[in-house]
Amino acid sequence: MNSFGVIFRVSIFGESHGPAIGINIDGCPPGIKVEPEDFMNDLRRRQSGSTGTTKRREPDLPEILSGVFNGITTGAPITIMTRNSDKISSDYDEFKEVPRPGHADFVARQKYSGFSDMRGSGHFSGRITWGLVAAGVIGKKIAASAEISAKLISAGGMTDIEKAVNEAIATNDSIGGIIECRISKPPKAIGEPFFYSFESAVSHLVFSIPAIKGIEFGIGFAAASMRGSRHNDPFIDSNGTTSTNNAGGINGGITNGNEIVFRVVVKPTSSTGVDQTTFNFTEGNMTTLRVKGRHDTCIALRMPVIVEAVTAIAMADLILIDRGIHHKRKG
Amino acid sequence: MNSFGVIFRVSIFGESHGPAIGINIDGCPPGIKVEPEDFMNDLRRRQSGSTGTTKRREPDLPEILSGVFNGITTGAPITIMTRNSDKISSDYDEFKEVPRPGHADFVARQKYSGFSDMRGSGHFSGRITWGLVAAGVIGKKIAASAEISAKLISAGGMTDIEKAVNEAIATNDSIGGIIECRISKPPKAIGEPFFYSFESAVSHLVFSIPAIKGIEFGIGFAAASMRGSRHNDPFIDSNGTTSTNNAGGINGGITNGNEIVFRVVVKPTSSTGVDQTTFNFTEGNMTTLRVKGRHDTCIALRMPVIVEAVTAIAMADLILIDRGIHHKRKG
Amino acid sequence: MNSFGVIFRVSIFGESHGPAIGINIDGCPPGIKVEPEDFMNDLRRRQSGSTGTTKRREPDLPEILSGVFNGITTGAPITIMTRNSDKISSDYDEFKEVPRPGHADFVARQKYSGFSDMRGSGHFSGRITWGLVAAGVIGKKIAASAEISAKLISAGGMTDIEKAVNEAIATNDSIGGIIECRISKPPKAIGEPFFYSFESAVSHLVFSIPAIKGIEFGIGFAAASMRGSRHNDPFIDSNGTTSTNNAGGINGGITNGNEIVFRVVVKPTSSTGVDQTTFNFTEGNMTTLRVKGRHDTCIALRMPVIVEAVTAIAMADLILIDRGIHHKRKG
Amino acid sequence: MNSFGVIFRVSIFGESHGPAIGINIDGCPPGIKVEPEDFMNDLRRRQSGSTGTTKRREPDLPEILSGVFNGITTGAPITIMTRNSDKISSDYDEFKEVPRPGHADFVARQKYSGFSDMRGSGHFSGRITWGLVAAGVIGKKIAASAEISAKLISAGGMTDIEKAVNEAIATNDSIGGIIECRISKPPKAIGEPFFYSFESAVSHLVFSIPAIKGIEFGIGFAAASMRGSRHNDPFIDSNGTTSTNNAGGINGGITNGNEIVFRVVVKPTSSTGVDQTTFNFTEGNMTTLRVKGRHDTCIALRMPVIVEAVTAIAMADLILIDRGIHHKRKG
Repeated sequence: MNSFGVIFRVSIFGESHGPAIGINIDGCPPGIKVEPEDFMNDLRRRQSGSTGTTKRREPDLPEILSGVFNGITTGAPITIMTRNSDKISSDYDEFKEVPRPGHADFVARQKYSGFSDMRGSGHFSGRITWGLVAAGVIGKKIAASAEISAKLISAGGMTDIEKAVNEAIATNDSIGGIIECRISKPPKAIGEPFFYSFESAVSHLVFSIPAIKGIEFGIGFAAASMRGSRHNDPFIDSNGTTSTNNAGGINGGITNGNEIVFRVVVKPTSSTGVDQTTFNFTEGNMTTLRVKGRHDTCIALRMPVIVEAVTAIAMADLILIDRGIHHKRKG
Repeated sequence: MNSFGVIFRVSIFGESHGPAIGINIDGCPPGIKVEPEDFMNDLRRRQSGSTGTTKRREPDLPEILSGVFNGITTGAPITIMTRNSDKISSDYDEFKEVPRPGHADFVARQKYSGFSDMRGSGHFSGRITWGLVAAGVIGKKIAASAEISAKLISAGGMTDIEKAVNEAIATNDSIGGIIECRISKPPKAIGEPFFYSFESAVSHLVFSIPAIKGIEFGIGFAAASMRGSRHNDPFIDSNGTTSTNNAGGINGGITNGNEIVFRVVVKPTSSTGVDQTTFNFTEGNMTTLRVKGRHDTCIALRMPVIVEAVTAIAMADLILIDRGIHHKRKG
Repeated sequence: MNSFGVIFRVSIFGESHGPAIGINIDGCPPGIKVEPEDFMNDLRRRQSGSTGTTKRREPDLPEILSGVFNGITTGAPITIMTRNSDKISSDYDEFKEVPRPGHADFVARQKYSGFSDMRGSGHFSGRITWGLVAAGVIGKKIAASAEISAKLISAGGMTDIEKAVNEAIATNDSIGGIIECRISKPPKAIGEPFFYSFESAVSHLVFSIPAIKGIEFGIGFAAASMRGSRHNDPFIDSNGTTSTNNAGGINGGITNGNEIVFRVVVKPTSSTGVDQTTFNFTEGNMTTLRVKGRHDTCIALRMPVIVEAVTAIAMADLILIDRGIHHKRKG
Repeated sequence: MNSFGVIFRVSIFGESHGPAIGINIDGCPPGIKVEPEDFMNDLRRRQSGSTGTTKRREPDLPEILSGVFNGITTGAPITIMTRNSDKISSDYDEFKEVPRPGHADFVARQKYSGFSDMRGSGHFSGRITWGLVAAGVIGKKIAASAEISAKLISAGGMTDIEKAVNEAIATNDSIGGIIECRISKPPKAIGEPFFYSFESAVSHLVFSIPAIKGIEFGIGFAAASMRGSRHNDPFIDSNGTTSTNNAGGINGGITNGNEIVFRVVVKPTSSTGVDQTTFNFTEGNMTTLRVKGRHDTCIALRMPVIVEAVTAIAMADLILIDRGIHHKRKG
């Protein structure tokens, strides 16, 4: 199930060490300006390079294979890909017998009967999210009025993220983090109950991103400790502006026009430089594994732009559906 | 978008004060025993009646309109419905001009251009979840080996839930809560990356349930503060059993055979007996609203069975997809 | 797979002798007037009663369970059903061992492992098309500018249809026919290449109707004998009007604004009063079967309105998709 | 809507004169042998070169970008593409003001507001069917037991096809034809009523192929002139073998195990070397157009393999769905 969306549909493909990775985007309206350079800012934000990220370097230049002509979308499906390079596949050989704890090695072998290409974690690699970011650039153009901005607000339990990363590096370990996404000037009234609420669409895509294990909208889990009279956001004008925003801009699965706010948790990178006790499936006994290769100390550093991208993809789909059904509505 | 699922598809319908509510279930294999009484236990768990729940009483008896013959599923679509009764629609008239804070009143009017039936909150009512519970009963039969069990683990921030409810009643206010769902003996290797991970499927459905604002799998948001070497779950035998279960039974979006664990947060019921300052859209000024009618002090009390139901629906779909693609796999 | 559509989705349910048959319609815009009497004309056209149709009589009154409030669609899913009555199930007992040639008896038993409810042909019965006609009434309202009109243009190979039917009755046999559907004033530019061309959408639904075995658009099969210079329809004005209409109003899967024309073939009713040699699966030998019960001599007589209905359903979906993607287009 | 399928999903992309064309295939089971050379036979059958086909030559070598590792499918999505070459785009400039009769020029401009890339007919080009043939190769491997064979049985109304083509070439005109597809040893009991009958799935895909205007299953349109007693296919043994095959191997939308037979009609190529009277949309008056460039006299010559391909794609999807739902059925 490597596609998602009702009208604005994305189909993702590629393995970490295969020939190429990319994404196919269907249902994009014609007439939208798209130049290769439009992708560079977001793709660069996803790239490694800063402290705490892997030493694998990919130029990651996008090639647009279809759907764009003279720098404008045509209405035909858009396929964007990039070639893989800088691959060191031998790093991954031993995980066949000793699957890495926390990784997909074990489940992938079970599910795909041993046929999956697990070099560089294959189709499970965080590298596959390149295609999401590319599609997100298109999605942002469709949700043009909205300003989608995600950032890492804590790492390893600390708000001083640089300090947290340096401490983790010092112990050869990895850390996770929390990303907050805010959407100002969102389109009003998008989200399609019962089963395609704004939260449903966003969470569906968010949980496709490797390493994400939780999401909360608005005040989120803290709502469990609040009284209703405090949690409810009072309206203060005829636009539907509310004086508080505990709902995170969404009521009944539909955007109410206030800022949309949600947070996701990124687990610590599974690959660490620390010895781990685990099981050798070939020999049938416990063993010690230290994952070599090049890894991110804090993969969450690279993920805000991915969270923005899937949000934009979900919003683009919800906007086009809403326009289809409610085309007569004013505004 | 009132349907969900790839093979096992549910289509929900009905409004709180309309003639009937129900669900259509497609893709159910033939040969499964289904009697009307099979639904009663779960439907009763969803019903109101205990302290902290609304005084509206519905017999809620299910009528199976199709797809079951001689107490066995036929392979044709199953439609299950129940008539609405005990309706007092006049309670809802004033919300047209003064939309209730925290409710869907405002967004529904925006989205549906004023045409939605908002009596009893209409299609946004928690009452619509009756159909989810009915479909969940079928879903549980498909995921037969698994034991799905959800319970309310805290309310209003307290683990003594009875006390929390009584305190809220005493102040005419409402409270939320946290529900934990555990699935023991889950099927191994279900979940379809990239876009239909186990978490994606479950969260998509969970966020269709009114009042849910967050979900976390395994150790969840606490993972943000853990080191990778602690978070990773070491394998201890050839079945893939792990000594800890921070991943909540899921790696790479695929079940690993360990217990599946997730938690959701239910916001406090929006309707409370407390005066709330809000906006009168007809008069264009601030006003005070007290919601009359019959409401749940703690709607979370009635929701564990709904969380179980959507989990079972998601699992049924993932199981049938997995069988379709991987039918040759042993086990 | 008992649902169809991308935005305007129909989910059909029911068996011929079960409690009820009906349809669930999702994605219908709010604000459309729908009264129970709006259905009566089309439902009556589908009914039996005239010479050449079955003696089974069903009042077939529609009950709208959801999605319509004060005679106007709300935007929530619309469920419409009718109770089954006038059932004589004993007629069908013997087909378990001697499946009727030309019927679904044999394949249904194979596919559903003997669990399907085959009373009155169950979910395979032509009776299930009641729901299509009901949904078609809504579809026609969405495609409001278009006039969809289907009629039986030949039966048993003759254009004098009354004569053909009487001859078939005289021999206790059955006949098929050809239905032509014409859509004047169609919306221009609907149809979504590559995979959801106008022809794809219509043919998909047309072949869901029992007994239809072929479809051709425009000049259809006759095109195989024409030269391109004759087949091409020359434009004669800036609206895209063409002097001939061999394409049947569709180029490249997209409507060009000219009248849409297609024809479908209905096979003769499988059940006849004539002795047929066939196989007894219980005894393992050849036998002679005469189908008793009440049947249509020429089921095609009742089918023009069903063909109109599925056409309207397809058009409604294509219109809403087109509006979603191309909302900025003028006109 | 450039994707199709429930489990086995294909997403097509590319324009005739863009950088590349290709297809993305999702839901393919792991463990299937796929080598680049497996595609060559079918891709060559689709190529031009013989008398009556265009002089445009493309090497059309497939590049597998993902989903295949060590010559075996991995279970991850398979993307296959080929670069476009031998493009002469200037041929197509004048069609902007004088759309070619019978072509998509006019509707594409309407639908895509003038933004579509119509060089070489863009996404409407027959060239895009390359991806279908590539996916069909995979589909045939899934439907491995079945032998799918399509051939051109008449052209320009003649069964001597070579003669028909030569006559058309002599007059600079084009001709259509009729292709018959036969599937021997088909899987029994595939097809999913109500809306995904075997005929629905195949016709949906068949009408995505440019130039096809009709389809009939079994005896097809001739059924309209037959009596039921003659049309019904009598069973002659316990396997469900029938003595005649007027149903074309399908009852109630489900395969009955007999040979599957259907025919499609291909209209004459729209581009001909004959002068055509048509409309100049810029000048607003009638004009004479002669289409230059390189074209097929009889595009139907190249289409049998495409018809096989879409049949295989439909069958692969129906097989995987059937396995998912009916996994417990013997056989």
